[in-house]
Amino acid sequence: MSIEDGIAVITLDRPDKLNAFTTTMENELIEAFDATDANDAVRAVILTGAGRAFCAGADLSSGAETFSEWSAESNGNDANGDDLRRDGVDLRRHGDDLRRDGVDLRRDGGGRVVLRMFDSLKPIIAAINGPAVGVGITMTLAADFRLAADDARMGFVFNRRGLVPESCSSWLLPKLVPLQRALDWIYSGRIFTAAEAFSAGLVYRLHSREDLLGEATALAHSLTRDTAPVSVALSRQMVWRMLGVEHPMVAHRVESIGINARGAQADVREGIAAFLEKREAVFPDRCSDAMPDLFSSHLPRPRW
Amino acid sequence: MSIEDGIAVITLDRPDKLNAFTTTMENELIEAFDATDANDAVRAVILTGAGRAFCAGADLSSGAETFSEWSAESNGNDANGDDLRRDGVDLRRHGDDLRRDGVDLRRDGGGRVVLRMFDSLKPIIAAINGPAVGVGITMTLAADFRLAADDARMGFVFNRRGLVPESCSSWLLPKLVPLQRALDWIYSGRIFTAAEAFSAGLVYRLHSREDLLGEATALAHSLTRDTAPVSVALSRQMVWRMLGVEHPMVAHRVESIGINARGAQADVREGIAAFLEKREAVFPDRCSDAMPDLFSSHLPRPRW
Amino acid sequence: MSIEDGIAVITLDRPDKLNAFTTTMENELIEAFDATDANDAVRAVILTGAGRAFCAGADLSSGAETFSEWSAESNGNDANGDDLRRDGVDLRRHGDDLRRDGVDLRRDGGGRVVLRMFDSLKPIIAAINGPAVGVGITMTLAADFRLAADDARMGFVFNRRGLVPESCSSWLLPKLVPLQRALDWIYSGRIFTAAEAFSAGLVYRLHSREDLLGEATALAHSLTRDTAPVSVALSRQMVWRMLGVEHPMVAHRVESIGINARGAQADVREGIAAFLEKREAVFPDRCSDAMPDLFSSHLPRPRW
Repeated sequence: MSIEDGIAVITLDRPDKLNAFTTTMENELIEAFDATDANDAVRAVILTGAGRAFCAGADLSSGAETFSEWSAESNGNDANGDDLRRDGVDLRRHGDDLRRDGVDLRRDGGGRVVLRMFDSLKPIIAAINGPAVGVGITMTLAADFRLAADDARMGFVFNRRGLVPESCSSWLLPKLVPLQRALDWIYSGRIFTAAEAFSAGLVYRLHSREDLLGEATALAHSLTRDTAPVSVALSRQMVWRMLGVEHPMVAHRVESIGINARGAQADVREGIAAFLEKREAVFPDRCSDAMPDLFSSHLPRPRW
Repeated sequence: MSIEDGIAVITLDRPDKLNAFTTTMENELIEAFDATDANDAVRAVILTGAGRAFCAGADLSSGAETFSEWSAESNGNDANGDDLRRDGVDLRRHGDDLRRDGVDLRRDGGGRVVLRMFDSLKPIIAAINGPAVGVGITMTLAADFRLAADDARMGFVFNRRGLVPESCSSWLLPKLVPLQRALDWIYSGRIFTAAEAFSAGLVYRLHSREDLLGEATALAHSLTRDTAPVSVALSRQMVWRMLGVEHPMVAHRVESIGINARGAQADVREGIAAFLEKREAVFPDRCSDAMPDLFSSHLPRPRW
Repeated sequence: MSIEDGIAVITLDRPDKLNAFTTTMENELIEAFDATDANDAVRAVILTGAGRAFCAGADLSSGAETFSEWSAESNGNDANGDDLRRDGVDLRRHGDDLRRDGVDLRRDGGGRVVLRMFDSLKPIIAAINGPAVGVGITMTLAADFRLAADDARMGFVFNRRGLVPESCSSWLLPKLVPLQRALDWIYSGRIFTAAEAFSAGLVYRLHSREDLLGEATALAHSLTRDTAPVSVALSRQMVWRMLGVEHPMVAHRVESIGINARGAQADVREGIAAFLEKREAVFPDRCSDAMPDLFSSHLPRPRW
């Protein structure tokens, strides 16, 4: 991860493996988003890949047994958990595993990353610099924006491997593209072009590979340059949480708490004063110590 | 408010202030939608602005302290509520205020208007005749349709003032435009053109300023000319309520109750007969006294 | 129903009545989708109409009393149910009818068909070969895809008959087309062209009448040719159920159960092996006996 001029860049960095997704990568991504949230110097995050690919999907170097082993492993015959390891990582650190019918289920790793992104305090821009397949594309669905290289290719290939959609894509994808398109991609598992992704609305903008990071940076600055960090963080949580809420009254409660809470902080006074004086605002409130809680009393986060 | 040929026109009427939103306007809008609902002569409602603007947002004539005062006020140190006044209006009349951590929170005024529009029995067309900024654009999101003058400009400017989205826009906006576009507008707070609003789907149609009201009227007539008022009112409630419902079974219950209830009323017999006789229907049922209740047994409205 | 090369074709077959919808058709459609689900030889389903129409809507041959009789009938004064008949079918077989205020309500027949389609294990493609009006268009909303003849016409005509939206269309339509378009169609009840339906996103592709069935078949094959039947069936349930779910955590639970369950089955091993060996996969698992239950512990299906 690099940080420059308020923008953190998180790079998937196994270019010789086309950045294939591993348990190590899963845990490092979660730690990276913990770090960008905690660091007031970071206003926005760009997620991209090293080399010619964005992410080729789950690492299949264990071969045909990749998911079979995974399941067997996670069923944990060894009650001491000695077998609950993969890539040298203790699987139980993935979070609380779910017991069902007396066996332990292992949590989907892509889903753990996506849920961490869902809660991010900073806007996230996925800069899809090349092929993004399987978890390589689904992990980007909790980014706020997807920019793509115009020669990138994508695929929700799970049904071609005998698997199922993951990384919360069964929830996220139909909120981003028309339902018929989402079902076509998921059922067929076919690879499609960045042009199709753009015309369906999955990708916000297409750029040449050489321009991609620069354009992602420009978008990041356009979101953060004139805005209060705490307001952006609250907005992010509000919009994402409201996607699944049953009635606008819930939004009204959360927003009312938000206006009252912000009204008691310094940013609003500065924001209005700067507007009336036709000057740039300098917002004093910081995410690290001035984030009001708008949700817990009305909309608790479901637990795993 | 004027009423002509079945169409009520509600006009934001502080043209010298670009129709900036006040507590008085908030209360008058709620009363206006109460009136259009109660009046069987009104089949549809157009909401527009006087002069060159639609609505420039919250009235900031109190200066940098606008929202700070608001919060202090609403925290109500005076238990008798003597301080709970603004623009001469008793804030407690805003509805039941929410106590939290032992203090009173003031409800978002734009949200109160939008929730009243959400429950409207008559279709609402926002005719956005000029700039619509802040609450000026968010108040239109609970309208069924937004038509705009082709030179109008819009902005969800809250994050530039240190505020947060309001008027239930955190819930409504992503239901109207693609999520990436909604997040761009909300995070950045930037002003955008009517052309961008149209291409994103926020605005249903663009017209010249001189044609705007005429086109809004024509759309209103197209919705109401051949349709039963009670059917339109029920349809309106059904579609808006179903936006946040977890399973189509809930719709099936509400719709089944609806068909049974309508089958016992006079409109259906007339509607089928007119269709079979190839003549215009004359529907006898009226919203004021013939609205069946399809919801309360299955889908109660959340309370503040 | 015919079955050829893995694709079942269900044909609405009352061409002299423009395939008007009856209680008999309702029950036969439900039985047909039961049959396609139970038959492992069926990978996808095409729903189309015989003759020049797709479906002209509810059969109105009972005249102006069609829905009035319906309601009176379903109120069932005869406790023995002798009067609960229509087209010779015992209405109580429609499922559990709902008692309300001491009277029986009859369930919406189109809604019963749509809810059965919602639960289908096989992808459904509606091939709309001609006019599709009322229940004729709403019954297609739970299909995964709508292909249409370029001269087809459609209409949500309920408000012109004094009725209300049915077949769960109040829930489904706004998930398929922009809200303003859905409200325009539902409020006005107007007839619109296939071109308008396509540009709004209601229809996935337009074809000439002569090409329509062939193109529907080609789409069906593209979804099923390279994919595991159980994976497609699970994907279908996951995406449709997640449309109304409040938080991605619910998807994460369902998906995690899914990956663990699939990992213990044979398909995944074959899918990964075939991919690594660059050959076509031959998936052994069948829907009839190898469908894992991903939902009942976390997301029970609402009952009528």
